[in-house]
Amino acid sequence: MWQLHQFPLCPFSRKLRLLMGEKNVAYELVREYPWEGRDELWHLNPAGRTPVLHDPARQVALSDSQAICEFLEETVDRTPLISGSALQRAEIRRLVSLFDENFYHDVTEPALHEKMKKRIVLRQSPDGQVLRQLGRMLHGHLDYIDWLVDTRQWLAGPTLSLADLTCAAHLSVVDYLGAIDWKGHEQAQGWYMVMKSRPSFRPLLSEKMDGLPPPREYASLDL
Amino acid sequence: MWQLHQFPLCPFSRKLRLLMGEKNVAYELVREYPWEGRDELWHLNPAGRTPVLHDPARQVALSDSQAICEFLEETVDRTPLISGSALQRAEIRRLVSLFDENFYHDVTEPALHEKMKKRIVLRQSPDGQVLRQLGRMLHGHLDYIDWLVDTRQWLAGPTLSLADLTCAAHLSVVDYLGAIDWKGHEQAQGWYMVMKSRPSFRPLLSEKMDGLPPPREYASLDL
Ligand SMILES: N[C@@H](CCC(=O)N[C@@H](CS)C(=O)NCC(=O)O)C(=O)O
Ligand SMILES: N[C@@H](CCC(=O)N[C@@H](CS)C(=O)NCC(=O)O)C(=O)O
Repeated sequence: MWQLHQFPLCPFSRKLRLLMGEKNVAYELVREYPWEGRDELWHLNPAGRTPVLHDPARQVALSDSQAICEFLEETVDRTPLISGSALQRAEIRRLVSLFDENFYHDVTEPALHEKMKKRIVLRQSPDGQVLRQLGRMLHGHLDYIDWLVDTRQWLAGPTLSLADLTCAAHLSVVDYLGAIDWKGHEQAQGWYMVMKSRPSFRPLLSEKMDGLPPPREYASLDL
Repeated sequence: MWQLHQFPLCPFSRKLRLLMGEKNVAYELVREYPWEGRDELWHLNPAGRTPVLHDPARQVALSDSQAICEFLEETVDRTPLISGSALQRAEIRRLVSLFDENFYHDVTEPALHEKMKKRIVLRQSPDGQVLRQLGRMLHGHLDYIDWLVDTRQWLAGPTLSLADLTCAAHLSVVDYLGAIDWKGHEQAQGWYMVMKSRPSFRPLLSEKMDGLPPPREYASLDL
């Protein structure tokens, strides 16, 4: 069976768990905090990062979440999530990268640093200025998500795709950290509630990060 | 015809140009400096980044270099560069991401900032401490490339792949900026000379960045 090396608030691991949930691929979780720099993690992934998808029996260790998603897309027939014409697939991948790189850089990464790492690793308080800047960046990204939801059925086009899973993965981490202000973003919020209601989301909503409880509304399925 | 929006030292644009060269896809260049933040760039790519591959006639604008590479791989039959079994393809994509994310973050990006942006945009001198740190990181990455070259025919396995093009694209930018010390990395250097000799590399070696001439050896094909 696949072992997924991850920690509960890693957005790239969440994207993968959503994909594996939608595709019905079985896996077990191995807790891995990349900042601890365990030898085994560096051995499995020379980039020293989560997620890693490891099959000890077959001696296969895959890393980089997008490489893993493409691998599962190529090897598991059920529920294609990078589908459609080549142009539609390019649009899905463009959005995946927009969320994994730009949204992560502007919002998820500083939120994780200020609200998770400072609390449980560095024992420092968050920097209010960074949090305000992150809020402004999030607002801009939510505007763009509103626009996508307004003009398409799903974020990348007519069908649910890896772009939806990726965006929801990042938003769910920021939501766990209590850093989303949905005001003025009803379209994005409505779309996120639909994503949150999917069975693939359930395991994420019930998992907790040690020493860092989520706000009460985090796992709620009511608007 | 495709128009590629790029500037000569953008490593992601170089990766794409090498791919298009290998696949014999025609394109013309449009000079684009992302730090100038032109409206047209933001219009073509909401992430405001190069490269963008634009076909005005078909009103198609593709962005994120990896999404574009996957698109060309799916639509152009000639010279597959993400090929082999699903596991081999995962290995190619893992390495592409290692170079585009880790190598870029540790080496290419600080080299561009210190040696290009400070010189032609900010009018500042480079920070010696940053350059030394970058040199140490580069040394570690070259060790890993040496190991890949020692154990495989090409970086990702038995055939030339997008991993080779991506690694060569980043190294060529750092080489243009005069920041590579090959000492102790004969394997990596030998492999890079082979890459540099490919016809797809020629257009890159002859192009110059305004106000920033490359060192004399940059375009030389002798060791
Ligand atoms: N592009 C990679 C990014 C992975 C990544 O940045 N993971 C973070 C955790 S959320 C990490 O391990 N960071 C530690 C580090 O970069 O040293 C992927 O999609 O897998
Ligand atoms: N993952 C993107 C990265 C593109 C990227 O970072 N491009 C740089 C130029 S080398 C850029 O436009 N930076 C400006 C910015 O991020 O604002 C890709 O592969 O296309």
